Amino acid sequence: MTKQRIILVSKRSPLTYSRNKANGELEAMLAPGGTANVVADMASLLDVDWMCSAMTDEDREVRDRHPQGLQLAFTSSERPITVHMQQHDAQVFADMQEIMTADVLWACNNTLWDSWNAPSFGPDIRRAWQNYKLFNEDFLKAVALQLEQSPQAPVLVHDYQLSVLPGMLRKVSPEQRILLFIHIPWPSADYWRMLPGFMRRELIEGMLGASVIGFFAERWARNFLECVRDLLPEAKVDAGEMLVEYAGRRTRVAAMPLGYSPQAIDYREREMPADLRAWVAGRFLILHSGRTDPIKNGARAIAAFRLACEHSIALRERGCLLVRCNPNRLYVQANSDYQAQLHAEAERTNKHFGAELVRVICENDVGNTLGCLQEADVLVFNSTIDGQNLTVFEASLLNRRDATVLLSERAGAAEALAGVVDLVNPFDIAELADKLQAAFAAGQEERREKAERRWKRARGFDLPRWVDMQLTALEEQ
Amino acid sequence: MTKQRIILVSKRSPLTYSRNKANGELEAMLAPGGTANVVADMASLLDVDWMCSAMTDEDREVRDRHPQGLQLAFTSSERPITVHMQQHDAQVFADMQEIMTADVLWACNNTLWDSWNAPSFGPDIRRAWQNYKLFNEDFLKAVALQLEQSPQAPVLVHDYQLSVLPGMLRKVSPEQRILLFIHIPWPSADYWRMLPGFMRRELIEGMLGASVIGFFAERWARNFLECVRDLLPEAKVDAGEMLVEYAGRRTRVAAMPLGYSPQAIDYREREMPADLRAWVAGRFLILHSGRTDPIKNGARAIAAFRLACEHSIALRERGCLLVRCNPNRLYVQANSDYQAQLHAEAERTNKHFGAELVRVICENDVGNTLGCLQEADVLVFNSTIDGQNLTVFEASLLNRRDATVLLSERAGAAEALAGVVDLVNPFDIAELADKLQAAFAAGQEERREKAERRWKRARGFDLPRWVDMQLTALEEQ
Repeated sequence: MTKQRIILVSKRSPLTYSRNKANGELEAMLAPGGTANVVADMASLLDVDWMCSAMTDEDREVRDRHPQGLQLAFTSSERPITVHMQQHDAQVFADMQEIMTADVLWACNNTLWDSWNAPSFGPDIRRAWQNYKLFNEDFLKAVALQLEQSPQAPVLVHDYQLSVLPGMLRKVSPEQRILLFIHIPWPSADYWRMLPGFMRRELIEGMLGASVIGFFAERWARNFLECVRDLLPEAKVDAGEMLVEYAGRRTRVAAMPLGYSPQAIDYREREMPADLRAWVAGRFLILHSGRTDPIKNGARAIAAFRLACEHSIALRERGCLLVRCNPNRLYVQANSDYQAQLHAEAERTNKHFGAELVRVICENDVGNTLGCLQEADVLVFNSTIDGQNLTVFEASLLNRRDATVLLSERAGAAEALAGVVDLVNPFDIAELADKLQAAFAAGQEERREKAERRWKRARGFDLPRWVDMQLTALEEQ
Repeated sequence: MTKQRIILVSKRSPLTYSRNKANGELEAMLAPGGTANVVADMASLLDVDWMCSAMTDEDREVRDRHPQGLQLAFTSSERPITVHMQQHDAQVFADMQEIMTADVLWACNNTLWDSWNAPSFGPDIRRAWQNYKLFNEDFLKAVALQLEQSPQAPVLVHDYQLSVLPGMLRKVSPEQRILLFIHIPWPSADYWRMLPGFMRRELIEGMLGASVIGFFAERWARNFLECVRDLLPEAKVDAGEMLVEYAGRRTRVAAMPLGYSPQAIDYREREMPADLRAWVAGRFLILHSGRTDPIKNGARAIAAFRLACEHSIALRERGCLLVRCNPNRLYVQANSDYQAQLHAEAERTNKHFGAELVRVICENDVGNTLGCLQEADVLVFNSTIDGQNLTVFEASLLNRRDATVLLSERAGAAEALAGVVDLVNPFDIAELADKLQAAFAAGQEERREKAERRWKRARGFDLPRWVDMQLTALEEQ
């Protein structure tokens, strides 16, 4: 991997500090899952200065003690990384986080609006948008300071909270190599157009300040190019070459799939807990795994299992469904509604059949999760949409039972794993029920052959390759 | 207009029969609004055999009395048209109408799904899809019978209930000139993909049986081409020429905008009723007009008016908002929910200001509607999406007060009327409030100048031109 100094920018920090109530000491906690995790694993391969947001009062305290940045050494890493936590105005941060990120961009890019009841943009959205830009400006200042010391350093900007930072950076540093990576899906031009006029165009223009814009899947990259064509008729879009010429500059758009971080699956204690093992009791185990987030679509998985059990006496006698989810931002109404929906669907099913055929478990325990992925006979990742879905890769590598893997065709991972998983339409419950029955009936030889091909394919999508794709794309640009 | 015999096919009939309860006689009622109306006006210009569905028992009775078809003479028309009503199996018709049309295709093409709670496709959808195809087959038989007598007759198939009929016809009559016209929006490839796999591809293939596929707007035509590219990789799509080559044949895709039927606005008794006139009492009248359908987006119009009144004392003292809607299929839950939502929003606003600033009127009275369109100072057509929206053209021609026209950028009509109306984002309440205030402040001269340009533009989109576009496109193909 490259030895050059790299500037990494993300909202999420690799660590969050809090105060131990017993002894009053500051304690660091690793960021739980998602973007921050893979970005942290990425950082450990590089020589980086990492700009991120201070989230807690204790983060800010640590920050003030280390004005030149905080040196961190990960156990998995040979080189320390330097973390520069940014202080934001409280309203700026809240508007970026609660309105622009959760209500607006997350919902838009994951196509969660019905257009009747949502979205509705009132006067608050204008203030939130100004604060989103101020949030990006906080990072502009921090990066500019770093560039004074390392003027040649490539800048890697990670994720959609910082979409307009590349445009801001481009103005102060016209020749800089800047990459923007978007970790979530990108919607069609029509859907993106639902955003207020003052925002949708400025976001696209800000992104085009980057030399390279990366997505997990080609589908998202193509949708982005369509948005450019739709909103910036003066831009020249070459869909074949995936290049945009705009304002006298070229931006390359690329799919850069990531599958797994070797560090993430190299977890010592992975075991299905004893109580679960007792509940499964040798039955055919169907597993749905994902965080508490409506896009993970667990309720339709339960409905499909119920339908399959209606059709197959053998399945309801010898099969069971475990829905495992990591509690994730349960203060967001949709997420807690989703969790309640899972429990209600499970209860409905169990009541219907008079036995606990479905169990829902919400807890954060990586070892247990990986243990379950190991032991399943069917793995269901039927997300309504998903930027990529790393769990399907991790499961493909860890599973010991030659499981059948059912993956949503609307997950970014569907491109990388086409041909070695069974793709499903996440809205077609009848189809999913059929596929569950077919998986139950599948022969051992067929399962083994598929699992081997899947293992080989998944193996190719490791994190070092992903990091290399980003840096190579930047160098070629 | 052409003198050749033409075969016209649509689900909707120009007339529906019922029995007068007093004297037991059969009575014919003209179809209320929508597709059937413009198709009826179109038919009156041509020499047509019109295939449509018998809807009521009395329709079937009339049908049985006229096995060779029923001759109809419209007062506005010089030539009679011959109506052939089709009899369908009750379950076939119900599945086509209630599931495939209302729940599935209408919702999909108007992007009304949030992807979390809807859509969900259970086992019923498979039966409904088979019945949708049987419904189309009923028309195949009827058209084939007509073609025995007039083998050269062009076939015009109107609207999305008959999307697979062109493919069926193509098989039995490879050289026929067939046009399919879609009256509703067409969604992006990603959205269309939400449909079950067995259905989404077959629908596109069935449509490509046509020689020409017409949409109201280029945006819908381009989205359709993207769906072809996405689901039929073996098809050759020329987006510039808007041509598809598939299965050894070529299909032209085209935008054919319609604005108004001269017959529709040539309505004698158009007057605002006295009680409404008394309520308006010379105030600045903002009018929202459209049927009871969530896409018409009346609730956000009321919310925007409320916001504008918060900002402007003058507007709340001298302005008022009338929301006029034609009751439309109120047995559909979404439609009756929408109606209730309008009343609730109006009440909330009136309570807030302590005066009846907003009035909601739901009634079917063409003369009254046209009367209101005449007298408004601002016309709001802020649909969340709309295949075309003919009312904005009618209003542009009828209005007597040089009204400011606010039109959704997501209505098909936005293409035809760009530059002569003010386009609005239907989700941005704050923007709409600003535009209402600007309209209230606009000078008479500015209004007059815009209204004149709008009148001239709208005038060009008459129904005879639309019919001519269809027949010309067929001849050139």
